[in-house]
Amino acid sequence: MAEPGGYPFLKGHGTENDFVLLPDHDGSVHGELHATRVRALCNRRAGIGGDGVLRVIRTAVQDPSQADRAEWFMDYRNSDGSPSEMCGNGIRLFARHLVDEGLADPHHPVPVATRDGVKTITVDGDLITADLGSPKVLGESMVAVGDRSWPARHVDMGNPHAVALVEDLADAGPLLDPPVHDPDVYPHGVNVEFVVARGERHIAMRVHERGSGETRSCGTGACAAMVAAALADGLHPGMAVGGGDVAYRVDVPGGRLTVTWTTEDHVLLTGPAVVVARGTTHL
Amino acid sequence: MAEPGGYPFLKGHGTENDFVLLPDHDGSVHGELHATRVRALCNRRAGIGGDGVLRVIRTAVQDPSQADRAEWFMDYRNSDGSPSEMCGNGIRLFARHLVDEGLADPHHPVPVATRDGVKTITVDGDLITADLGSPKVLGESMVAVGDRSWPARHVDMGNPHAVALVEDLADAGPLLDPPVHDPDVYPHGVNVEFVVARGERHIAMRVHERGSGETRSCGTGACAAMVAAALADGLHPGMAVGGGDVAYRVDVPGGRLTVTWTTEDHVLLTGPAVVVARGTTHL
Repeated sequence: MAEPGGYPFLKGHGTENDFVLLPDHDGSVHGELHATRVRALCNRRAGIGGDGVLRVIRTAVQDPSQADRAEWFMDYRNSDGSPSEMCGNGIRLFARHLVDEGLADPHHPVPVATRDGVKTITVDGDLITADLGSPKVLGESMVAVGDRSWPARHVDMGNPHAVALVEDLADAGPLLDPPVHDPDVYPHGVNVEFVVARGERHIAMRVHERGSGETRSCGTGACAAMVAAALADGLHPGMAVGGGDVAYRVDVPGGRLTVTWTTEDHVLLTGPAVVVARGTTHL
Repeated sequence: MAEPGGYPFLKGHGTENDFVLLPDHDGSVHGELHATRVRALCNRRAGIGGDGVLRVIRTAVQDPSQADRAEWFMDYRNSDGSPSEMCGNGIRLFARHLVDEGLADPHHPVPVATRDGVKTITVDGDLITADLGSPKVLGESMVAVGDRSWPARHVDMGNPHAVALVEDLADAGPLLDPPVHDPDVYPHGVNVEFVVARGERHIAMRVHERGSGETRSCGTGACAAMVAAALADGLHPGMAVGGGDVAYRVDVPGGRLTVTWTTEDHVLLTGPAVVVARGTTHL
């Protein structure tokens, strides 16, 4: 296993949501990227470890239909090996990597193709912003942990979120198991955010991601939490005094994010993303 | 963070007890290896991730008093940055690395210097055996998890272990917190093994390591578990019918080990150890 050679990888994270990057520009390194390899890479003790894998591949190879709008495609896989549309922290790390390697120009917005269409990323020094599009604000239903329950706002960011505004982040306990939710509202499961106010336009949250358990950060979850909190504060961009974008600081266990809800009804996720190691593996 | 350069690392594991290896043959890469760097490397989301760090350094540089007996010194650090004497799975991975890199001859026993003296490692294809010396078999005291408790054998392998023979490995529950032990017997804490019989000279175990929580494997813990089980089975090497070494298969959550108690009263830990990735980092 240790002989030189193997294929290249990088490891990095955005607010401790961590990923294995696999450069595979023309698709010749991995061909079909098998779930078994993704699982082996993401295994935290027998592998490299990560919440997911980001294959870096040219859009012309992966999805020619999007190739006229973005040179690079983020081929995102969950740690269980399943492909997924999008990942808010992952795409910020993906853009960090493109800029670090000279594959994208940091002085202009960087378009990145995904299974959920082309996303636009902007890089400003250490801070990287992903435009995650428009939120869908839906109804309320109950979520429960143990014998406690809370009303939770349904916010769809391309994936479903249930956001509960709580008095104390400790109330949800260790979150070993998925919070109980209404299967009629969320037939495919849901990511659940517990949110407390920390100050003016400043919240803190914990998140339980479906399929992953409690994590250190979730990009779309931070956006959903901000949207629910802003609505509770009467700060929808269309309602804000004098109009204009509304920005909240969102503290997650793995760091600090800023979420901006624009007057165009887009949600922007801003925060750091860093590559911490690079090398080769035979996994 | 992502620019080329940085210092070299490898990642590997023995039965999913995983480590970051730091080649630093003459000590010039890291000088004093600071606890903050070790913690950053071992951080599973913001770093590379590992149960500990193994610096690969010449004994002549690290500890000249042992240099006549072993060319290489295993400078072992726990994931919290503290130095430690020895690690049964770590030293097997260390020897795997030496052999892979041509730094040691696999056809002869490989001496490795540690803070606990020189250990002898043998490599037989994929299987690597570490001689962990003589166990000290001491008395019994109680360990408890929740409202259940068990008598546990005190076995010292250089570090203290309390081995409880149980009916079912599930009895101990999730082991989120350290099992309760007698502080008069274990004033500096203790590693607790829960052991079930699986067949003749075949046991399975779970382990809670002091300072780390429940882990996928613990080399000295597997040895302590085997010694306690062999004694319960009346199979001390001196008692065995016809004499001779006594060997047990020990299943741990991260794989399969073999522990041999020799007629010289040494305990040998045998199992696989593999390097899975290599590269550079600035952590």
